[in-house]
Amino acid sequence: MSSSNRTIWPSPSEAGAIEIIDQRFLPHEWVIATLRSPEDAARAIKDMQVRGAPLIGATAGYGMYLACRHVQQTGMGQSYLEQMAKLLLSSRPTAVNLQWAVERQLLALSAAESPQQWVAISRKVADDIVEEDVETCRMIGVHGLPLMEAIAAKKQGPVQVLTHCNAGRTACVEWGTATSPIYQAHQAGIPLHVWVDETRPRNQGARITAWELADAGIPHTVIVDNAGGHLMQHGMVDLCLVGTDRTTRTGDVANKIGTYLKALAAHDNGVPFYVGLPASTIDWSISDGLTEIPIETRGAAEVTHMAGWDEVANARRVVRLTPPESPAINYGFDVTPAKYITGLITERGIAEANESSLLHLFPEYAQPV
Amino acid sequence: MSSSNRTIWPSPSEAGAIEIIDQRFLPHEWVIATLRSPEDAARAIKDMQVRGAPLIGATAGYGMYLACRHVQQTGMGQSYLEQMAKLLLSSRPTAVNLQWAVERQLLALSAAESPQQWVAISRKVADDIVEEDVETCRMIGVHGLPLMEAIAAKKQGPVQVLTHCNAGRTACVEWGTATSPIYQAHQAGIPLHVWVDETRPRNQGARITAWELADAGIPHTVIVDNAGGHLMQHGMVDLCLVGTDRTTRTGDVANKIGTYLKALAAHDNGVPFYVGLPASTIDWSISDGLTEIPIETRGAAEVTHMAGWDEVANARRVVRLTPPESPAINYGFDVTPAKYITGLITERGIAEANESSLLHLFPEYAQPV
Repeated sequence: MSSSNRTIWPSPSEAGAIEIIDQRFLPHEWVIATLRSPEDAARAIKDMQVRGAPLIGATAGYGMYLACRHVQQTGMGQSYLEQMAKLLLSSRPTAVNLQWAVERQLLALSAAESPQQWVAISRKVADDIVEEDVETCRMIGVHGLPLMEAIAAKKQGPVQVLTHCNAGRTACVEWGTATSPIYQAHQAGIPLHVWVDETRPRNQGARITAWELADAGIPHTVIVDNAGGHLMQHGMVDLCLVGTDRTTRTGDVANKIGTYLKALAAHDNGVPFYVGLPASTIDWSISDGLTEIPIETRGAAEVTHMAGWDEVANARRVVRLTPPESPAINYGFDVTPAKYITGLITERGIAEANESSLLHLFPEYAQPV
Repeated sequence: MSSSNRTIWPSPSEAGAIEIIDQRFLPHEWVIATLRSPEDAARAIKDMQVRGAPLIGATAGYGMYLACRHVQQTGMGQSYLEQMAKLLLSSRPTAVNLQWAVERQLLALSAAESPQQWVAISRKVADDIVEEDVETCRMIGVHGLPLMEAIAAKKQGPVQVLTHCNAGRTACVEWGTATSPIYQAHQAGIPLHVWVDETRPRNQGARITAWELADAGIPHTVIVDNAGGHLMQHGMVDLCLVGTDRTTRTGDVANKIGTYLKALAAHDNGVPFYVGLPASTIDWSISDGLTEIPIETRGAAEVTHMAGWDEVANARRVVRLTPPESPAINYGFDVTPAKYITGLITERGIAEANESSLLHLFPEYAQPV
């Protein structure tokens, strides 16, 4: 994997602009979008041109940089910056990386001697967020790889991994979180096969994870979200590996809607259920995922309509799935209680899904925040 | 509900022909198809123009009648009849009603004094299957209604029911199995709201259950299959109510893929999980659903492509959802072990999901078959 596989980068042709892959059109179309303002960045997050907790954090980081450039060009001050920080923070309610990235920028900027330094400081912070994400994701793979090796050593045939949604490199800058152990196992020559949950309503699995894995030459099969329980009942899954958008200090995990159902099936069938996560997704201030993590409700049209590729017309089309009279509701995430999680694969190693094990890896958070 | 709501009926205009609603086009188009041969009936089952265990049974019953008409017209004999029985039996592997209906026909025909009686006998058997289904489904509602009344008596607001796939009147001839208590509760004035699982890959929930409920004026909301666990975690479901394609004598239930995941979530959150079923779906010859019920694999295109309504062109369209390089697999059903089922609502009353409770209602099956 090289930097050409990145999902966000400073424009090589337009000073100060940031480029992203517009992921809404994957896998059917490859669209690059340019962010020129903090509003562009907030819209990219809100409309899911970018998605995945780490990439949302990186985009918010560059959003603050774009705000600082606007300050430089217009002479606007602190209140504009705070307003743009709020705009970015409001673009997605669940992902903790968003808050983390914006606050990191605000903290760094507050240490500046004058607003003249803001552009340079915010650019450095945003670049750092990106480089740290790449290294963090790489380390998640380093720590997750032995799990795959241990399974491979004990069985004939490929290691069967089930994943939900996309916690792959397009959710991050490179490597991905849940997929980093998969890529590293593949590079290490371990035979693998990945069951890719479609992940309705936005089909990030069928569209993006499948595309990533095909691109990397990793054997995989797309299944509907309903199928994973059946596979696990019949011994066809060795390991579940998912990402997280927000993790409590007690190890509860808020991830894409439907993750909880897969964790229940894994638990019922003795299948290990692991979550790959950068520490930035841990919200050390909360202990109860079910009551403390807000679950965003997105537009009902994501349920009632679906976009796909019309192979006859060779064009992207949106079709309605439901009767026009039938309402729909669209919860974006659910919470998997820690008791159903075998382990949390972080950049510092694997923790059990409980507070003491997490604090063993992250002792700096021992004091409640 | 009246007989105009039926899903299969003898053609009023063409002697000997049978008419069905071609359910593949619901809810966007209302298409009536005519069955003129046993091959037509087998194709209607296989291609899911008709679906749902009871309606499959009814269609197979009429398929045998159409075979008998062919015998009458051509002078073909017993071996043709057996060949057509085999064809019908092979059209869907999981639904036990198919086998039950074909065997009922063969048994009745074997008692005929001569093949000249076959048309009349098979027509009577097929008509009987239909009328019995209507009465059976009505009785499932009669026995299920008190469950709804009991919940309504204990809470403010509507009774919140979650259902998966379509076990409604379009899966049957009238009333439906899982939906019969819903329709009867609605008619009894009990406030209700139904969460309708989309039910990928064929979207029978989003297309057909939603359409049925809208048609009956029953409040409902379509959700993706991933959402039910979240709803149950947050106390938003009072009762799960699903159908079954095959039930073991021990109470294991094979129903549309994904049912098992909802049963796990119901169990985890203390939500009652009921299955509405005519006794014809009970396969008294098997005791272990996981090892003894064959799970059909359907075409991968049901996963990789989806049909919907193009509101711009005002036409039905099929769109591709996945990258062309990514394979898919499509398991049609899963098995929910009896331990996760609160009760089986049959035409004779509610049984617990175990052999002794089922035999208490159906003592005629006390001897293993």
